Amino acid sequence: MTTKQPEDGLGRWPIAHEINVQWGDMDALGHVNNLVYLRWFENARIHYFEALGLRAAMDARTEGPILARQEIDYKIPVSYPERVRVATTVTRLGNTSFTVAFRIVRATTQELVAEGAGVMVMVEYATGRKLPLSDELRRAVLAFEARAG
Amino acid sequence: MTTKQPEDGLGRWPIAHEINVQWGDMDALGHVNNLVYLRWFENARIHYFEALGLRAAMDARTEGPILARQEIDYKIPVSYPERVRVATTVTRLGNTSFTVAFRIVRATTQELVAEGAGVMVMVEYATGRKLPLSDELRRAVLAFEARAG
Amino acid sequence: MTTKQPEDGLGRWPIAHEINVQWGDMDALGHVNNLVYLRWFENARIHYFEALGLRAAMDARTEGPILARQEIDYKIPVSYPERVRVATTVTRLGNTSFTVAFRIVRATTQELVAEGAGVMVMVEYATGRKLPLSDELRRAVLAFEARAG
Amino acid sequence: MTTKQPEDGLGRWPIAHEINVQWGDMDALGHVNNLVYLRWFENARIHYFEALGLRAAMDARTEGPILARQEIDYKIPVSYPERVRVATTVTRLGNTSFTVAFRIVRATTQELVAEGAGVMVMVEYATGRKLPLSDELRRAVLAFEARAG
Repeated sequence: MTTKQPEDGLGRWPIAHEINVQWGDMDALGHVNNLVYLRWFENARIHYFEALGLRAAMDARTEGPILARQEIDYKIPVSYPERVRVATTVTRLGNTSFTVAFRIVRATTQELVAEGAGVMVMVEYATGRKLPLSDELRRAVLAFEARAG
Repeated sequence: MTTKQPEDGLGRWPIAHEINVQWGDMDALGHVNNLVYLRWFENARIHYFEALGLRAAMDARTEGPILARQEIDYKIPVSYPERVRVATTVTRLGNTSFTVAFRIVRATTQELVAEGAGVMVMVEYATGRKLPLSDELRRAVLAFEARAG
Repeated sequence: MTTKQPEDGLGRWPIAHEINVQWGDMDALGHVNNLVYLRWFENARIHYFEALGLRAAMDARTEGPILARQEIDYKIPVSYPERVRVATTVTRLGNTSFTVAFRIVRATTQELVAEGAGVMVMVEYATGRKLPLSDELRRAVLAFEARAG
Repeated sequence: MTTKQPEDGLGRWPIAHEINVQWGDMDALGHVNNLVYLRWFENARIHYFEALGLRAAMDARTEGPILARQEIDYKIPVSYPERVRVATTVTRLGNTSFTVAFRIVRATTQELVAEGAGVMVMVEYATGRKLPLSDELRRAVLAFEARAG
């Protein structure tokens, strides 16, 4: 999934933010626990969609994207204290789902810490029924990715 | 708060359950992290109120208890693998709030691991307005505590 | 990764355990958060390797398996209260790495909740250097999987 | 504990930092979960002691402060998105323990969100034996608090 080529106009990494590793993110091996990276990815996905300005429907809690799949490759362990940079991009816009990729690097050296992707499916929350991606969403994603060009 | 005498008919520890420490509960010092004990307490409070059979109003999400205060004393550190026993009791029934105490012991040796208490306030979720404890709740708590006698 | 055929003598799901969903496992959408499933998988992996009786080296903290990759497919959302069953199996034994697959089902109905896999790499903790899987580990895994036959 | 007057030269709130609430910090009631505030406090304590420049002994993992008790009062619920400010101060320097107080406010309006305190005991990690606070630590804390005057 992560190695596929992004579709036209996608995969341009339009957004990134930096995070300070917290002491409590470490597990008993003294490294950031494997779950923490996926919490960072969760936040990064949310930031991406907030940046699109499409939170109205999600706030109404009637419909929105849910995570159907995710995968992650861990490259180098990190520990507290450390600062990482998490970048995200949409690489695919399907009929009822889309793919978001992420890359986590050391903020200082840009060394790759972890990378992966998630598949989000648009659903009606009350029923779990899949919904087609709206044209508004498609246009907003393409416009946002284009800004990174 | 934890050292106060419980009110009449309360403080009888009517319920307890056992929990296996998870590897991921440990932090970088190799001990169960301080937050985990309060997650156990959160679960124990919920089990207590489920045992009362009063979940109807909470499920409706219109009103219910929220945590206004908590305190905990850590006695001995525990690590994975370990099994602990968490007991809870209501020690006070006020006008709009009540106090739940908890004790965590090693399941094998009964050594005291941690103890503490939380103050729950009954509120209307939408507004945050405090509500008087219902007579139904008072009766249910007293009956449940009496069973432990 | 999850869809590949297991190697000979592997993929027999020799171990499973049941878990009660905790109230605090839910996120603001009222479902168990995506990270929690991977915490369950973390525990399940550890239980698998404890069942092999090979904890000596890991306790010594000189060498052991670290997670290099994981992937998960979420099938149906679950909420508190619910009981799930997590089964694990080793599906591949490579030179310096091995693959552990997991399946999470509703304990009552056996409906598939989530499934996935992780790649563990054997390393010397101090240096991060990859180590060959020991013959002892290979034999122990094959014997453990055979028991499930 | 939180209401006691700080000792001379202490309780001056020399350090604070701001934190963005994360979406995943919320629980099923749609508010930041009660544990998250104590994770913020954990980080704030660590920042305080890093600011003292005394990490040498802790890095060596031979001795350091462990949490013996904590208490927290929750004043108003917060939700994602929100930015909070966490301030800490040492209010007491005992023989083998000291007390750290914290206050969490909305970064925008300064409304009090939560406040509390923790008692840290200095121990030798290997044995759990209590150690007297070093003169170096006392001087460093007093100098750091004085800076806030």
